[in-house]
Amino acid sequence: MRIAELGRRSGVPVPTIKYYLRAGLLPPGELTSPNQARYGEDHLHRLRLVRAMVDVGGLSIAAVGEVFAALGEQRKGVSGALRTVEAAVTPVPEDLDAEAVALGVAFLERQGWVPDDRSPAFRALVGVLGTAREVGQEGFADLLDGYARACLGLAEADLDYAIGDGAEPELDQALERVVVGTVLGDAALAAVRRLARREVAIRRFGHAEDECPRGECAGDGCAGESGVVENGAREGGA
Amino acid sequence: MRIAELGRRSGVPVPTIKYYLRAGLLPPGELTSPNQARYGEDHLHRLRLVRAMVDVGGLSIAAVGEVFAALGEQRKGVSGALRTVEAAVTPVPEDLDAEAVALGVAFLERQGWVPDDRSPAFRALVGVLGTAREVGQEGFADLLDGYARACLGLAEADLDYAIGDGAEPELDQALERVVVGTVLGDAALAAVRRLARREVAIRRFGHAEDECPRGECAGDGCAGESGVVENGAREGGA
Repeated sequence: MRIAELGRRSGVPVPTIKYYLRAGLLPPGELTSPNQARYGEDHLHRLRLVRAMVDVGGLSIAAVGEVFAALGEQRKGVSGALRTVEAAVTPVPEDLDAEAVALGVAFLERQGWVPDDRSPAFRALVGVLGTAREVGQEGFADLLDGYARACLGLAEADLDYAIGDGAEPELDQALERVVVGTVLGDAALAAVRRLARREVAIRRFGHAEDECPRGECAGDGCAGESGVVENGAREGGA
Repeated sequence: MRIAELGRRSGVPVPTIKYYLRAGLLPPGELTSPNQARYGEDHLHRLRLVRAMVDVGGLSIAAVGEVFAALGEQRKGVSGALRTVEAAVTPVPEDLDAEAVALGVAFLERQGWVPDDRSPAFRALVGVLGTAREVGQEGFADLLDGYARACLGLAEADLDYAIGDGAEPELDQALERVVVGTVLGDAALAAVRRLARREVAIRRFGHAEDECPRGECAGDGCAGESGVVENGAREGGA
């Protein structure tokens, strides 16, 4: 297809596609004349990956370039590639507060996890702990053990998804799934966490008068559970 | 304190503080002369909150303004305030794909959660599902039920943290904790998820030769568990 069709099918404006080509995020098309090129389904797929990382993940063009470079370095194996991809998609603070580092190290020790004071994820976590202390929310660190328990289960499922159910993962596809799972997974997890918190808040506190999610009650709370309110009694409430 | 000291103690440059004052993110100081004002600990605290939202949460100045406005509207109660805060901190896609919306609705129904097709979190989730479909990762949606289970547990702990252990939450403090918990919690959860995934990947696959996290092995894998490797045997392996 020509670049105009690539633009139509991907929803990405042609000038933007040209910019991605110049930045090396898309391989060049096959030249059919000195100033015209043909593009294939691979280009369309790659273009959608770029948009997923930019639009959903908020990645910079430079970071997307690093991710694609990491995808090319297959010799690193799955855990090495994970580290490179995560370095590209994780904003890392420059200066770390020593007390926050100690909190982070203690967190890893409590979980019995491999120590990892160089990784972007660890440094990002320490940055959050430092900020929490600065705003007077020292207790925030106590939530992390629960996060760790929840995330171990998620990690098993994420990895199962990335490697498929074959005995040997196909590294090419696995790494692409790691990228998608990391970038889209962050966004999906944040969204699901909010939906879950709203659900739990409605179950505990009811909801404001003007926003009954079912349009069924007069503001004194209605069932958040499976939607069954019998005889006006709230089921399973605290 | 004068503005220069406020800058020193907060680490925020004075011109930035002046910009926040003009944008209404900080209340004005107490005038001590026509062009000099005095600031208190409240200003320092508020300034740190602003930086937490901007630096860790990546919020725009406008979004921070909306969050503070929401904090002021206490009549909405906890769940109403949650919604307003989350609207301010959740990037929401403009156009939603109809099939992705159906996936999102089905997801909420499977969990038995209150339907919520207007909330920013739901729209954000649908946006992610649409993107996953576009990049050919339809199977990504299957991960969400696991996310939901994990997030329900997190939501209980998040709310406990927000309202403290008193019978009646102090709304002012609760809402500030909601903001901090939402913004810092997103960042912390993403970081912990990566650390957990790395842990699980090392347990399953070992690690690359040049990056033994303990500096103890020659690349053929070492214990990722509690760090105890006895007689060269790997404990608790698959």
